[in-house]
Amino acid sequence: MNESRAPRIPRDRKNDYSQESAQQRREFLQQQTGEPLELTGQYSIDPQVLPGNIENFIGIVQMPVGIAGPLHINGEHAKGDFYVPLATTEGTLVASYSRGMRVLNECGGVTTTVVEQFMQRAPAFLFENARQARDFGQWVSDNFAQIAAVAESTSSIAKLMHIEQWSVARSRYLRFNYTTGDAAGQNMVSKATLIASEWIKENSPIPCDYLLSGNMDTDKKHSHLNMIHSRGRRVIAEAVLKKDVVKRMLHTDTRLMAKAAVMSNTGARIAGAAYNGPHSANGIASLFIATGQDEANVVESHAGHLSHELLDNDDLYMSVTLPSLIVATYGGGTGLPTQKECLNLMDCYGKGKANKLAEIVAATVLAGDISLASAVIAGHWVSSHDRLGRNRP
Amino acid sequence: MNESRAPRIPRDRKNDYSQESAQQRREFLQQQTGEPLELTGQYSIDPQVLPGNIENFIGIVQMPVGIAGPLHINGEHAKGDFYVPLATTEGTLVASYSRGMRVLNECGGVTTTVVEQFMQRAPAFLFENARQARDFGQWVSDNFAQIAAVAESTSSIAKLMHIEQWSVARSRYLRFNYTTGDAAGQNMVSKATLIASEWIKENSPIPCDYLLSGNMDTDKKHSHLNMIHSRGRRVIAEAVLKKDVVKRMLHTDTRLMAKAAVMSNTGARIAGAAYNGPHSANGIASLFIATGQDEANVVESHAGHLSHELLDNDDLYMSVTLPSLIVATYGGGTGLPTQKECLNLMDCYGKGKANKLAEIVAATVLAGDISLASAVIAGHWVSSHDRLGRNRP
Amino acid sequence: MNESRAPRIPRDRKNDYSQESAQQRREFLQQQTGEPLELTGQYSIDPQVLPGNIENFIGIVQMPVGIAGPLHINGEHAKGDFYVPLATTEGTLVASYSRGMRVLNECGGVTTTVVEQFMQRAPAFLFENARQARDFGQWVSDNFAQIAAVAESTSSIAKLMHIEQWSVARSRYLRFNYTTGDAAGQNMVSKATLIASEWIKENSPIPCDYLLSGNMDTDKKHSHLNMIHSRGRRVIAEAVLKKDVVKRMLHTDTRLMAKAAVMSNTGARIAGAAYNGPHSANGIASLFIATGQDEANVVESHAGHLSHELLDNDDLYMSVTLPSLIVATYGGGTGLPTQKECLNLMDCYGKGKANKLAEIVAATVLAGDISLASAVIAGHWVSSHDRLGRNRP
Amino acid sequence: MNESRAPRIPRDRKNDYSQESAQQRREFLQQQTGEPLELTGQYSIDPQVLPGNIENFIGIVQMPVGIAGPLHINGEHAKGDFYVPLATTEGTLVASYSRGMRVLNECGGVTTTVVEQFMQRAPAFLFENARQARDFGQWVSDNFAQIAAVAESTSSIAKLMHIEQWSVARSRYLRFNYTTGDAAGQNMVSKATLIASEWIKENSPIPCDYLLSGNMDTDKKHSHLNMIHSRGRRVIAEAVLKKDVVKRMLHTDTRLMAKAAVMSNTGARIAGAAYNGPHSANGIASLFIATGQDEANVVESHAGHLSHELLDNDDLYMSVTLPSLIVATYGGGTGLPTQKECLNLMDCYGKGKANKLAEIVAATVLAGDISLASAVIAGHWVSSHDRLGRNRP
Repeated sequence: MNESRAPRIPRDRKNDYSQESAQQRREFLQQQTGEPLELTGQYSIDPQVLPGNIENFIGIVQMPVGIAGPLHINGEHAKGDFYVPLATTEGTLVASYSRGMRVLNECGGVTTTVVEQFMQRAPAFLFENARQARDFGQWVSDNFAQIAAVAESTSSIAKLMHIEQWSVARSRYLRFNYTTGDAAGQNMVSKATLIASEWIKENSPIPCDYLLSGNMDTDKKHSHLNMIHSRGRRVIAEAVLKKDVVKRMLHTDTRLMAKAAVMSNTGARIAGAAYNGPHSANGIASLFIATGQDEANVVESHAGHLSHELLDNDDLYMSVTLPSLIVATYGGGTGLPTQKECLNLMDCYGKGKANKLAEIVAATVLAGDISLASAVIAGHWVSSHDRLGRNRP
Repeated sequence: MNESRAPRIPRDRKNDYSQESAQQRREFLQQQTGEPLELTGQYSIDPQVLPGNIENFIGIVQMPVGIAGPLHINGEHAKGDFYVPLATTEGTLVASYSRGMRVLNECGGVTTTVVEQFMQRAPAFLFENARQARDFGQWVSDNFAQIAAVAESTSSIAKLMHIEQWSVARSRYLRFNYTTGDAAGQNMVSKATLIASEWIKENSPIPCDYLLSGNMDTDKKHSHLNMIHSRGRRVIAEAVLKKDVVKRMLHTDTRLMAKAAVMSNTGARIAGAAYNGPHSANGIASLFIATGQDEANVVESHAGHLSHELLDNDDLYMSVTLPSLIVATYGGGTGLPTQKECLNLMDCYGKGKANKLAEIVAATVLAGDISLASAVIAGHWVSSHDRLGRNRP
Repeated sequence: MNESRAPRIPRDRKNDYSQESAQQRREFLQQQTGEPLELTGQYSIDPQVLPGNIENFIGIVQMPVGIAGPLHINGEHAKGDFYVPLATTEGTLVASYSRGMRVLNECGGVTTTVVEQFMQRAPAFLFENARQARDFGQWVSDNFAQIAAVAESTSSIAKLMHIEQWSVARSRYLRFNYTTGDAAGQNMVSKATLIASEWIKENSPIPCDYLLSGNMDTDKKHSHLNMIHSRGRRVIAEAVLKKDVVKRMLHTDTRLMAKAAVMSNTGARIAGAAYNGPHSANGIASLFIATGQDEANVVESHAGHLSHELLDNDDLYMSVTLPSLIVATYGGGTGLPTQKECLNLMDCYGKGKANKLAEIVAATVLAGDISLASAVIAGHWVSSHDRLGRNRP
Repeated sequence: MNESRAPRIPRDRKNDYSQESAQQRREFLQQQTGEPLELTGQYSIDPQVLPGNIENFIGIVQMPVGIAGPLHINGEHAKGDFYVPLATTEGTLVASYSRGMRVLNECGGVTTTVVEQFMQRAPAFLFENARQARDFGQWVSDNFAQIAAVAESTSSIAKLMHIEQWSVARSRYLRFNYTTGDAAGQNMVSKATLIASEWIKENSPIPCDYLLSGNMDTDKKHSHLNMIHSRGRRVIAEAVLKKDVVKRMLHTDTRLMAKAAVMSNTGARIAGAAYNGPHSANGIASLFIATGQDEANVVESHAGHLSHELLDNDDLYMSVTLPSLIVATYGGGTGLPTQKECLNLMDCYGKGKANKLAEIVAATVLAGDISLASAVIAGHWVSSHDRLGRNRP
């Protein structure tokens, strides 16, 4: 029984990425739906660059790009002033991030730190009972060097750093942690972990079956595990907001910002939020689209912690910690023409640039959060009657 | 002190959205960075459509769109066969979703249900002590009708349905829940809640200050609260996978799929994952970009629950519940030319279409998860030695 | 096959709660294990009070009780000075709570507020598809008054306040929220919900089956849901710690306490902790045992939020919010002789006292957290070199 | 200002643990409150055993103990049939656990496995910026051997196994993981970590301050971190429930139990519950009180995962995984007279017995969950109209 009577999408066996194939599909869709896809069918890139990025290609969605910045970054990889391309359809987003960047520049810029990098694949191994699963785990630890050698044989880049392990019921969940250079690395760690899992299955003294992913990766989804253990890069962006700059440019007060942060942190905690600041996802998503990142990884990448600390002189230390920021500077969509241009704007295309891009993303998130947090306060927090700190309950 | 010596981005006070303004900025960026943005500067849409969607416009990122489907949907709003546009740079994504759709068609299609719709803004009100905060909450409940009238005066669309309340310390967090028609509605609920909050502040018998967002909205971030209480639309897509179709088309077995689901669910729970299936975020992000949704909302929208239930005849009931799917069919980026075309492909542009689009998104997520879940099993789960179900521990 | 060869525990069909029955079981256990249970068998209460509290009674575990306090409470129900009995085997616990109480007294005592009270039972209803489940939910809302009447027919105390609802897959989870007076109420809400569920099943226009608990109660376990929606009582205890009292009695500084709180809050958030203060569970568990509460409810009750706010004069506002504190002043173990005596110490036995007890528990938790938090700081936080607030990163 | 006018509790400088001291305090309390504490003041243990367990001793709360079992355990440490003492005031608890034990015996008993053991203390180190914090972390890793030597110098038992590390803002959270033999170990790891932290502070090439606990321990509270990384012991109890035994003794059906488990798991996941089964906390709390465990640790210990897997022959594999079960067989309250007797009942007092006790606790939890889960189903799940598995949505 096939309840669908609608015809299949046409494919061209010879050259499915030609202009003609795309046009043929658009014509087919026009027949089926009436929509001619006129502008979607007009684009300036050569579709021959697309294999490996998409199938059943029909055209191009045109995402407008705005430029924010400059943003002064004191990074280890990103050093100097950066103009940051943001692809978005949300009005005010670019303007707001730009405002935050101006404030940060006035305060001396953003200091950025890449702490570590990992990409994971997490197979689950099954046994007859929990005792076998536990003993297998010990065997895995004892044979780590050999497992790593097998895993690393699949790639010149992926390095297996360590394997986390969990026993639940009669399963043993392994989580392979690799460094993957300047690629996001999901595919290379899948390949490496598959061959390693096959080797394990063949060589384990305890018979086992396995599932290549037992969902502890956790790929393409936010998880508390990713908050705890970095997936992608853990990056921190810091700045000290000067009291007078905040007053002059943001029309608010560092003390009020600190108070509001406490309320926001409390709300975020009660809500069980993946991020306690205003909107990390906005900056990350728009930078990701502009630079050819995997846009689904926004869900992992947006998690994190926004810190506030009022200093003795009433300046405000602020920092954002992004534990699972997944970025790449080659592979995937980074090589598509316009995306590559956007990476070039920041000198972030190619090998050796992923840490730099990670620093720029974190600094951008900090800028956006400063801007939005202060906007909420300046408009709506009635400071002239700040009775909150004075009275006893 | 301004440590940034880099010049500001040029603006055109007369017409900042003209071709010339964009070109002027590209030339400026070329001077600063060396990157000419050649292809980014070539596009077929008229930038005069952009005000309200972006600032400091410099050009267009070209995201390739592939077409998946047809997908047969038995919805209340989406009825029939749909071709689904997916904007992505991840190879195999379109092909994999298409495979899942073919399987679903063979099984009679997907049944979809929109359960409810809400959009929130959550101000926090501050008092001198917890008792005031509690009593204020009672006053808010008693005056709900008037608060709703004030809030709804700002929009012909937003309707205030109810206000959730939480007391923490000496604050009272309110969470205004609106229906917002076919718009995502974040802006309209902000306006409505601001005016309502001002009214509350003026009329509350207990003096208070407030912050327009106390972070329990929770906007642009995943939260457990959004898993529990819908933000956007709660949508469910269901299907019964026929045993023989799974064998023939997916080369695996419904019993193995059910077993693997248990392992994945366990892994997801231990990891504290926002979604327990393979990759809701992929389908959502690519559909969002193709149709002009706010791409940052992928973080809220990807959360959910994938259900499996092996029936007595070994067919497999599967469903996906997305509690916080935020979609719009007008406003925001939906009116941009190529995005509108992609919406038109599914007859989803304009008023009265958001429930339809929500159903299509949920059905697409189900297709993608069926495809990836079975791929993991077929390749890597050694069924011939399925000793797992037979032996005692 | 019965692999256990060990004999069954003897029962006395006539009077299983007599001294003789208990002794017979102890003799049986001595035969089986060699342990005579000499002191366990010596107790001063009459075992005839035990039916309804335990089965297979063998004797008494003697938990030492220490007395903390006095604690000055400015409650709505608890007013004045209280001596708080704590049953524990952890050395320093009573001393530490007492220290916190002395500090609070010096600062004017603790202000306490009971915000609300609910007890839940959460059946899950099953349907053929999600649409039925959704429509059933609407029917439940439409028939709330009748459902409440049926539920409340089982008890003179339990009042059904509202029913929360969630659609997941083809199930509809209902969560019945009752007030239960001065009893914890788990049993009365089970009875009420069972009869209501039977009525629903019979009267629902859409055929359904149900499970009396779908685990969204969430009974005898911590859950984020209980953090959001109160289970038991939501109680808040507040105080303003005076700067000089902190210095004199706790040998630390309110500014340091505020700084340390930020670090603890951050750690708790990254860890995903149910409570962000030092040790709510200690005070709750020991007060629960002393007063005959259900000791398993410590898991729900210990969740909460500890707030800090440094005031302009460097005094420190602190408060604890316990959203799911489950206490009773009659029923369950509250009527056992020694437990009743401990309740009497605080004039908390019997009807009309549960709010009072809840206030005392919350105030006690605040005292314990102040004491431990300051101890950690005074000993180990090197204040003389507090460079943390001064320098830029 | 001291608002409390109530007098202090009397202390005896010579022998505060004498019968006379306790009586003096009781008399004092009677004067203050009118409650004579008559039965609380009658006990059979000698209060001279109490120093180290309590302060301001006033008497004994008498918790009734019931005996459940026998339970047949196939452990590595617990081998044979066990009678399990449960101290509770909740009627039916002992009877219900006993029922589950009988079922398990009929099915061949419970297989138990201790997977690993850790106890933690988690100081937070503070720096001027994130880069220092990161580099410090590397230095800690490089100097692990020396840090371990310092830490282990404080105890003959505690062994430092590894240090987890997290960078957040400009702090570095360390989490020292020790094995602590048969003690729960919180105190010994505090001492060890304090001296190690002092050594680190003195020897770190990067100047730092620290807080002995940054709340990532996470002591006396449930946390997702404890679900992921074991605190105490990770223990697994497994059994295969025979179809016919379930029918005969539990009056239900393994297929229905598997179905109900799916619904309960879903509810628990949506609720964000620390445990997905019926009531781990009941068995743990009552066994903890009977055996002198720290009762506050129930909050950490009750977290876990209940697994169900329907086998091909319709037998039902069930297991409980408790990742953070904190038990001791010496130290703390285990040496108090009645508690020691209860430990002796299971031959669990003293060194070398903690793994055994952990196995008994896990097996007991499994028994209780089987009993309650089946009771919910048998009474309230209408199996005769089990249409749930047959129809398409």
